[in-house]
Amino acid sequence: MDYLDALNKRYSVKKFNAEKTVSPDALFHILEAARLSASSLGLQPYKIVIVESSEMKEKLIPAFYNPSQISTCSHLIAIVSKNDIESQYIGDYFSNISQTREVPLESLNPFKQSISNHIERLSKEEVMTWADKQCYIVLGNLMFAAALENVDTCPMEGFKQEKIDEILGLDVGIEKVAVTLAIGYRSEEDEFQNFKKVRKPTEKLFKFI
Amino acid sequence: MDYLDALNKRYSVKKFNAEKTVSPDALFHILEAARLSASSLGLQPYKIVIVESSEMKEKLIPAFYNPSQISTCSHLIAIVSKNDIESQYIGDYFSNISQTREVPLESLNPFKQSISNHIERLSKEEVMTWADKQCYIVLGNLMFAAALENVDTCPMEGFKQEKIDEILGLDVGIEKVAVTLAIGYRSEEDEFQNFKKVRKPTEKLFKFI
Repeated sequence: MDYLDALNKRYSVKKFNAEKTVSPDALFHILEAARLSASSLGLQPYKIVIVESSEMKEKLIPAFYNPSQISTCSHLIAIVSKNDIESQYIGDYFSNISQTREVPLESLNPFKQSISNHIERLSKEEVMTWADKQCYIVLGNLMFAAALENVDTCPMEGFKQEKIDEILGLDVGIEKVAVTLAIGYRSEEDEFQNFKKVRKPTEKLFKFI
Repeated sequence: MDYLDALNKRYSVKKFNAEKTVSPDALFHILEAARLSASSLGLQPYKIVIVESSEMKEKLIPAFYNPSQISTCSHLIAIVSKNDIESQYIGDYFSNISQTREVPLESLNPFKQSISNHIERLSKEEVMTWADKQCYIVLGNLMFAAALENVDTCPMEGFKQEKIDEILGLDVGIEKVAVTLAIGYRSEEDEFQNFKKVRKPTEKLFKFI
């Protein structure tokens, strides 16, 4: 089971080797795994910002409580959730379905109506929570794919919301950073790589009924 | 890139082949990927209930809005989030770290204190949202690993919260089902397997800065 080896080797890197950059090929594959992530109703209520410039990483440092990863990672990935699902957004989604599957847009109307009704019934807070959760499936896929590519990662929730949204130039009010992931290669100096992984034992985590 | 092939082949199954069961080996590997999931602060604020008995699946049908997967899947996996992180829970976590890494419990006190302080500052709602999001990383890992095992999946959020929690015998108030995943093998009759996957194109999903 190669993938379990890969997942066993991954850990949340505290300090990356700032000299090593993730190759465009590996990055493309990892991002493609994110693009293929499942999402509720297929709506993919997010976009993904990939910070590769050193200047921008530098700018982002004050937005994080523990910025050691930001200054040493190869790329910082911010998963940005949509807090508002406008009818235009749903319309674009159905145009995409229609084009991709070569079916008339009208034939999708019942499905479109049921999605619109469902979204309309949600409060703004419920939409935010729902969208944020979908971002965590993306986060999972990114970490899993990176592990398979031998690329190290550190997921980070510890950022100042207003600051990071502002620095990334987000359209505050309709979108926000849900979670971030630093990727790169572990520094030899990062002692955490030598610590055994701590997880609940099988009998505490699982219940079969 | 075999794993991208696997992710491309996966889709949310609407009807499983009720005659085919996921083997104990494949199930073990998929669950191990869930156990290895990253979580915020390493706290794994969840447990995972695997429904394998036909009787229990039958009982659960009224708890779902679209139950066609429940009656045909091999296993139904419910990821149950902890809504309350008691000091006992944090204590158990640090005992596990201490034993796994063979370090004195006392040496972990600063880390333990910082985690306790962090959790204490959160409202009950914030703990729930935070825990739920960690469950979605588990969901992502389960779907990814299942795809690699050629096991089909359908993630499902469409359940009646009180009903499913009650049927699964959860300790309501401190835990609840966050999300569920049906696994098994697609039925030949499931026409959705022939539909092209719809995802946002790269240029709409990604922004490089």
